[in-house]
Amino acid sequence: MSVIQQAAVIGGGVIGGGWAARFVLNGINVKVFDPHPEAERRLNEMLVNAERAWSKLTLAPLGKRGSITFTDSIAEAVTDAGFIQESTPEDEALKRRILREIDEAAPVDTPIGSSTSGLLPSKLQAHMAQPERFMAAHPFNPVYLLPLVELCGGDQTAREFIDQAATFYESLGMRPLKLRKEIDGFLADRLLEAVWRESLWLVHDDVATVEEIDDALRFGAGPRWALMGSFLTYRIAGGEEGMRHFMAQFGPALKWPWTKLMDVPELTDAFLDKLAEQSDEQAAGQSIRELERRRDDGLIAILQGLKTQDWGAGSVLKAHERRLYSRFHGQAAKAEPDLSQPFSLHQGTVPPEWLDYNGHMNESRYLQVFGDATDAVLGFIGLNADYLASGRSIYTVETHIRHLAETRVGTAFHVTTQVLGQDEKRIHLWHEMFRSEDHTLLATGEHMLLHVDTHAERSCPMEPELLAKAQAVTEGHRGLPRPEAAGRAIRVLRPTA
Amino acid sequence: MSVIQQAAVIGGGVIGGGWAARFVLNGINVKVFDPHPEAERRLNEMLVNAERAWSKLTLAPLGKRGSITFTDSIAEAVTDAGFIQESTPEDEALKRRILREIDEAAPVDTPIGSSTSGLLPSKLQAHMAQPERFMAAHPFNPVYLLPLVELCGGDQTAREFIDQAATFYESLGMRPLKLRKEIDGFLADRLLEAVWRESLWLVHDDVATVEEIDDALRFGAGPRWALMGSFLTYRIAGGEEGMRHFMAQFGPALKWPWTKLMDVPELTDAFLDKLAEQSDEQAAGQSIRELERRRDDGLIAILQGLKTQDWGAGSVLKAHERRLYSRFHGQAAKAEPDLSQPFSLHQGTVPPEWLDYNGHMNESRYLQVFGDATDAVLGFIGLNADYLASGRSIYTVETHIRHLAETRVGTAFHVTTQVLGQDEKRIHLWHEMFRSEDHTLLATGEHMLLHVDTHAERSCPMEPELLAKAQAVTEGHRGLPRPEAAGRAIRVLRPTA
Repeated sequence: MSVIQQAAVIGGGVIGGGWAARFVLNGINVKVFDPHPEAERRLNEMLVNAERAWSKLTLAPLGKRGSITFTDSIAEAVTDAGFIQESTPEDEALKRRILREIDEAAPVDTPIGSSTSGLLPSKLQAHMAQPERFMAAHPFNPVYLLPLVELCGGDQTAREFIDQAATFYESLGMRPLKLRKEIDGFLADRLLEAVWRESLWLVHDDVATVEEIDDALRFGAGPRWALMGSFLTYRIAGGEEGMRHFMAQFGPALKWPWTKLMDVPELTDAFLDKLAEQSDEQAAGQSIRELERRRDDGLIAILQGLKTQDWGAGSVLKAHERRLYSRFHGQAAKAEPDLSQPFSLHQGTVPPEWLDYNGHMNESRYLQVFGDATDAVLGFIGLNADYLASGRSIYTVETHIRHLAETRVGTAFHVTTQVLGQDEKRIHLWHEMFRSEDHTLLATGEHMLLHVDTHAERSCPMEPELLAKAQAVTEGHRGLPRPEAAGRAIRVLRPTA
Repeated sequence: MSVIQQAAVIGGGVIGGGWAARFVLNGINVKVFDPHPEAERRLNEMLVNAERAWSKLTLAPLGKRGSITFTDSIAEAVTDAGFIQESTPEDEALKRRILREIDEAAPVDTPIGSSTSGLLPSKLQAHMAQPERFMAAHPFNPVYLLPLVELCGGDQTAREFIDQAATFYESLGMRPLKLRKEIDGFLADRLLEAVWRESLWLVHDDVATVEEIDDALRFGAGPRWALMGSFLTYRIAGGEEGMRHFMAQFGPALKWPWTKLMDVPELTDAFLDKLAEQSDEQAAGQSIRELERRRDDGLIAILQGLKTQDWGAGSVLKAHERRLYSRFHGQAAKAEPDLSQPFSLHQGTVPPEWLDYNGHMNESRYLQVFGDATDAVLGFIGLNADYLASGRSIYTVETHIRHLAETRVGTAFHVTTQVLGQDEKRIHLWHEMFRSEDHTLLATGEHMLLHVDTHAERSCPMEPELLAKAQAVTEGHRGLPRPEAAGRAIRVLRPTA
């Protein structure tokens, strides 16, 4: 299949619009047919969301956007399309009618994917003249972000078209999942429908509200499902004995009324063998301990990601951190560092995501460490949330870092700080970052800070209380020897060839 | 309830061990009773995982760890406990026996939580002398990371003990969910069991393998469940008309065989009203467009987090970025920048997670931008994966940054680079970061780079091909005027009081 440059989207609602957005973001020109009077406005709004989302999702260069054209007929949309995506309402008779119209007008070798959530492709393709190029291609909302697309052919679908479609969807950054068997609801929607129907019962019977049910997922099993689904999760839950142990432990529960779904398969030896063998294959030789660590790293990444959005399980983490910091600051405020010496208000451990491709701490993380140390010093002299809210802050205007030794993952470090100088608007800091274990000097940071009026966006003198505390620290450090490397420039190399 | 400093964990397996880990990480001393001969080894291994996980999860100060003591009897473990967590096998008779033993030996006002996944607390507490302090407190594996704990009292449970327990769990960074009604399987496990039973059918009937079923979740609905559960997700899927529209659209599917769970509630007007009203309450006035953007930001955070772990939907993103970068570098390799001028090989847009508390780009991100620009220059002169694999690399040893203008979210920027000097081991770079829109100079970065033998961990001359390309660039820039601020030190402020 040559590179597809022109696609048709039939039906431009939540799903079809999501497809159109994913297509144009990947440089494909799209013709859209949707008779809804608001179709164009809605699709344009979705495009804005999708462009915004991708600009945050990746810094990778997307290349030139494709174009979007609305057409007056299905025939006009599909006539020169290299790929066709149908996303009309979930109505079998309607879809069959529209698919016949698409089939008649489209080039005979153009693949046609239907976004149906679970209607059988054999039925949808029954009256097409070229049924071999038709398949269900079921995506997940928002289509421009979530990678899954389930590919399910019908009786008359040719394997080569499914392979072509899979290659195409992959080129859009998606994850095609080719189904082995045709089944109502495919794979994903059978699982989603089970949750959905059970959830509806819980609301119906006043056991819980919709919000409580959502909470029961997103603070617990949701992050695990995002990471590894059910089977790998349960393999780990089985502990060292894995899947067989899990089934022995929780097999009996299948007979208990823990859901409305009471029709369950019998746990014969043959079925248990099948489960255990497939689970072994999935684990691909990784021990439970390895899987546990990979699971934990994945969950941590999800929780930290959600923390930046103050959402779900990330909100819980954020609140807990606030509690921990507040206890820490309460203790720190009571502490009185010896101001006649460089003092240390910041320490930490290098996490794995700070690595660069050399296996060392990425250079920008040194400035993060020194920035955090600066924040700790500013907090100590009284730059707190109230001060910031009053429209005053302190910005770094200049930085000089020397990288002196390699820093690896898991290294415990601490930063000491010496105030080199200060006036009513400025503070001149000298940080030294040490490996705590053996007091190896890892890096030095020299920083000029400027006190600003954040509304007027210009420098201004510190408020009296802050200034007094800053002066106390400066006064304490006045007699200290100046670090030899302070006030130094990068030594100039003469251009040589 | 005073602060709890001593807790008992009865049963120290996967769940009990997770509880013990969460307790000690939060400074609580724990006594564990578990007669399994391997209990102590297993719990210690889990503690290692939990400590490792928390050191990555947060830089917030956890404070002093609690201690762990194994006891020879239940009575010894619970006798001075301020909180008791029971996590024995899911066997009603066994749990009742153990809970009676706990009840007899524990201080009468100590709350007792059972980790049961779904046995009814009314039955478990039936023979206790102080049943009012007993409740189901159902966590999710790994207990030391996932925040959800479902609290469900039985007939005899007193509300005040549930409130006490909720406060305690919150202090451990958890998210207690108090159930309105006692029900088999509580909320979360009813949803999990529905998915699980449906999944078992799919494997049993050879529709899919365990891995395919896991994939059907983790590349699609999983990230949404991690973020917002089902109801809020579907509210958004309903588009502008929200929940009512979604039910009108997908209500009929409830009668279709899209899962084995065919017993579904009737969609009466009253039930539809209830759903719509609860959904409105959950959305709390946020429009579908707002919810869409929050959803997208959350999914992006999850996808980016998973990308750092090269896992699930994050692997798909990573592979797509590799594809996009490879196309871009293919184009860049063909391009020939004008080497008689500073050239630009790096550009981007400031994402929201780069913000600091002033609403500007965090200072460490400037070094990230300059570091990326340096990488682009090094890639241009031939520092690629093969070169790195040969045991040679180039490290930054010194950096001088001047922050000249504020940089906000969404700002498109580009970096230009001038080579100031070079010898066979070193390269001296000058970067300027511009706001692309109006060519405002945002920051300058001066960097000294050193070529190293990464095995011997010392500097060494560049390989001939790399050196030749570096010299070509240096030669091209030889005639350029030196930037005025290059080679400058931070101006020394005299310590003044």
